[in-house]
Amino acid sequence: MMDERTLLSHVDHTLLAPTATWEEIRTICDEGARYGCASVCIPPAFVRRAAEYLAGRCPVCTVIGFPNGYATAAAKAFEAADAVQNGADEIDMVIHLGLVKEGRWDALLAEMAAVRAACPGKVLKVIVETCLLTEGEKVRLCALVAASGADYIKTSTGFSTGGATRADVALFARHVTGGLKIKAAGGIATLADAEDFLALGADRLGTSRIVRLLRQRDGG
Amino acid sequence: MMDERTLLSHVDHTLLAPTATWEEIRTICDEGARYGCASVCIPPAFVRRAAEYLAGRCPVCTVIGFPNGYATAAAKAFEAADAVQNGADEIDMVIHLGLVKEGRWDALLAEMAAVRAACPGKVLKVIVETCLLTEGEKVRLCALVAASGADYIKTSTGFSTGGATRADVALFARHVTGGLKIKAAGGIATLADAEDFLALGADRLGTSRIVRLLRQRDGG
Repeated sequence: MMDERTLLSHVDHTLLAPTATWEEIRTICDEGARYGCASVCIPPAFVRRAAEYLAGRCPVCTVIGFPNGYATAAAKAFEAADAVQNGADEIDMVIHLGLVKEGRWDALLAEMAAVRAACPGKVLKVIVETCLLTEGEKVRLCALVAASGADYIKTSTGFSTGGATRADVALFARHVTGGLKIKAAGGIATLADAEDFLALGADRLGTSRIVRLLRQRDGG
Repeated sequence: MMDERTLLSHVDHTLLAPTATWEEIRTICDEGARYGCASVCIPPAFVRRAAEYLAGRCPVCTVIGFPNGYATAAAKAFEAADAVQNGADEIDMVIHLGLVKEGRWDALLAEMAAVRAACPGKVLKVIVETCLLTEGEKVRLCALVAASGADYIKTSTGFSTGGATRADVALFARHVTGGLKIKAAGGIATLADAEDFLALGADRLGTSRIVRLLRQRDGG
């Protein structure tokens, strides 16, 4: 069994509910810092306030083109630059899935490259929404995301028909190249889930429930 | 019973699925033009191509900050300006619901005003996501959306826990001021639904199913 501190260092502690308030986001920030999470993953509208509040105690991650992915490349690039200006350390962007279905790989690479250029030096994760993809599309995207210069391929938004699966993380682990890392997100509910996904090759986990479980255990 | 042509003139013929392809969007465009719809409502990434393809045969509507509403005001304003530059005639924006839950009405009005300023002369609809609101919040938002200079208050994104209800449209009809119109969206499935919502005070209906029903009847 994995050391708990190590496990938490792979968690993006996440709250992306449409009705989330600052009070709820502040709690996520406090928990993320207290439990030594990799980041807190929060809506763009809260990034500035969270970054000021955390003042470096925990990195701030946000989402771009989220969750449907069909904003224009120009809008995604603007969102990413705006987030960085507001203090974001990490950017999780959603790809335009219509381009996948049309097989327009060049246009997909171009939108990833536009976002990559808009957040230089920041961690970039590319959400491909595995529950809406074929096996062939998933494999193809491993290479494409690696070619974009992004740091991670991420399974899911948590707002579609399914979240991370063990099979998809294992598939990604077999196909990523060039040091591309894997983030599993959506439906990660238990410590056993978290350990499984990390053992299968994920480097990050998007979830709020791991911290909540530990907090309940700690009586906090 | 309402004249069919009149009914269709109130329909925003809508396709906002994350995996929608240009071929599917083009069909929506053809149907929107053929059936005399108020607009076609499509993802931002397809606006330029749809506007070129339609060349004025049907207005193009798109969505901003959609569907979760928690992009920054700056990002929403950029998205709206970008959409107009790409040929959009109408903009459906989602409000930041966290601001509603915090009672930050000034900040809400400011983000609506920022989007209003970014698309001068275009039809602006403000989506409030009624299924996540209390009665009091819905009433308050009628006044706030009217004050923003938007043209419509719109019930729903179609991506949350519920769509338009007859009760909400009736509530809006009692509380809108200053010529603010009402768009009902989400779950409008039959001609009877459409007629009910229009009779209750809606001026626009966001749905794809009305046109599809008529197309099936027409054997097309």
